[in-house]
Amino acid sequence: MSAPKRVGQHTIQFANPPVIVATASVVGPKEGEGPLGNTFDMVIDDSYFGEETWEKAERKMLEEAVKMVIAKAQLKPRDIDFLLAGDLLNQTISANYAARTLGIPFLGLYGACSTMYEGMALAAILIDGGFAHHVVAACSSHYDTAERQYRFPTEQGVQRPPTAQWTVTGAGAVLMAPAGNGPRITHATIGRVLDVGIKDPNDMGSAMAPAAVDTIVRHFQDTGRGPIDYDLIITGDLGRVGHEIATKLLGEQKYDVSKNYSDCGILIYDHERQDTHAGGSGCACSAVVFAGHLMGKLNEGRYKRILGVGTGALLSTTATQQGESIPGIGHGVVIEKLG
Amino acid sequence: MSAPKRVGQHTIQFANPPVIVATASVVGPKEGEGPLGNTFDMVIDDSYFGEETWEKAERKMLEEAVKMVIAKAQLKPRDIDFLLAGDLLNQTISANYAARTLGIPFLGLYGACSTMYEGMALAAILIDGGFAHHVVAACSSHYDTAERQYRFPTEQGVQRPPTAQWTVTGAGAVLMAPAGNGPRITHATIGRVLDVGIKDPNDMGSAMAPAAVDTIVRHFQDTGRGPIDYDLIITGDLGRVGHEIATKLLGEQKYDVSKNYSDCGILIYDHERQDTHAGGSGCACSAVVFAGHLMGKLNEGRYKRILGVGTGALLSTTATQQGESIPGIGHGVVIEKLG
Repeated sequence: MSAPKRVGQHTIQFANPPVIVATASVVGPKEGEGPLGNTFDMVIDDSYFGEETWEKAERKMLEEAVKMVIAKAQLKPRDIDFLLAGDLLNQTISANYAARTLGIPFLGLYGACSTMYEGMALAAILIDGGFAHHVVAACSSHYDTAERQYRFPTEQGVQRPPTAQWTVTGAGAVLMAPAGNGPRITHATIGRVLDVGIKDPNDMGSAMAPAAVDTIVRHFQDTGRGPIDYDLIITGDLGRVGHEIATKLLGEQKYDVSKNYSDCGILIYDHERQDTHAGGSGCACSAVVFAGHLMGKLNEGRYKRILGVGTGALLSTTATQQGESIPGIGHGVVIEKLG
Repeated sequence: MSAPKRVGQHTIQFANPPVIVATASVVGPKEGEGPLGNTFDMVIDDSYFGEETWEKAERKMLEEAVKMVIAKAQLKPRDIDFLLAGDLLNQTISANYAARTLGIPFLGLYGACSTMYEGMALAAILIDGGFAHHVVAACSSHYDTAERQYRFPTEQGVQRPPTAQWTVTGAGAVLMAPAGNGPRITHATIGRVLDVGIKDPNDMGSAMAPAAVDTIVRHFQDTGRGPIDYDLIITGDLGRVGHEIATKLLGEQKYDVSKNYSDCGILIYDHERQDTHAGGSGCACSAVVFAGHLMGKLNEGRYKRILGVGTGALLSTTATQQGESIPGIGHGVVIEKLG
């Protein structure tokens, strides 16, 4: 027996697909200089954003993105029923302290770099379920706060291997409502935690690709759809390494995604010019690419239907020190521009 | 304009209140020796639970609690639509790795010690919204993993001040469905992040009490109810210090809770005998007291209607080192045994 708003074994099908009324994005200088630079709402001049620490800068970016998305929708913070947010820092401090500033009822999430899509799925659930009229989902990441916490302080100048990805400095926010003119969230396929035994924190793409593929395949099985039904299938931050693995794994299951599968971590930087190795990563990677580039293409009518899969590497230095490998997760959301 | 399933400004009122079909609890030796010892499903002999590290022990407790709640409901993991879980450890590793073992579609939460109530609210939303038939909400904490991460490794034997609380070693799980015989979740009031400037990681009760009070007052205002409408109002882990502050703050707002307000952190240990200072804390505190003691009293008919408020101190060593104070949050859920 299945719940009413479901299709297949694992996929939610919204009865009245919630509308993405507005999105907002704030990014760092490097992201501003990248190929998608002109799609972001705000590019900050330096990675401190006028603050004393990178952590405070990250929080400020998140606050700015949320304030901006609310203003774009011509609303006030008190009009927002729920804020769903998370980030990569221990105890998700960017989200917690931003929620303190904003004063909106707050549901804290931890999905590593999949957080934006976890938040969008839950925001759509809150709205389609009749529990809210306006929900904001948001997240942030910052190159220097992430490197310091997960790998080495950037001041040390440790050499990075080719499989390493570059954590996006930025914050993205999405505001949803039951009605309006924007693109709609029609389906969500929530991820399972998968682990293929990767132990290298500089190879997140390999750790996450199988989880993304698991979600995409379950989504296709549940909906009876295939790659041809989407203008674009886009993962969050697999980068070049993970994108290649995901393409291969999907091919092995007879899903040919060679024509319409991309990854936000590949799009956000110029591989030749920006020295970002395997590509972008971090919560903000899929968040700002969605809020800027993809939202623009949906509103222009260039894309009618996208399957976005936010990907997260559930990396922990404590677990790694205790001999654990790095599991991954991928949350899928279908965004459609109707009419 | 308000969404259909809401009452007042901030409170969700479920249309078909989801049923708590089963609960499960696993606790450590100290909790087993406490006054609620005989209400828990499993008391482990030593805090390593047969594992090499406390972190792995915590994860195993969480896995056991989830497996147990599913078995009690005579279901299999594949019957569960979503697992909602979180814990106190960096990157919520207990939840992530437990989700890897269990293979259930997973939504990771971070609400510090409020996680159980955040999860119960979201589980009820998923079910009442028509998105799921069976949802498990769960969380864990462990005295030694929490002390090591937030304060001092326990091996150091640092003296604890009287305001300090004792992190509960344990894990709790709640399984919900649209129908059945158990108590039902009728309302949820989601917390806002509040901060009154507490900077001492050994005084969490003072940091959390104002956020709990904010949620309780908003709940009363939204529903037109008061303390008299509840057999019990119970906070998660304010302990003795926070309970006293919350009682005083509610009194100042003309809500007399002197007769029916308690706190899980007070109930779980014997203050005279167990040397736990201000009382219990941690994600597992409200989780196992709910899964064991409160569920028992609800099923016996001793309590007909409870307002439970899971409380979280959004403590972070990184933020504290950067001069920040400790914000708090409280998520309220009404549990009612009808008929």
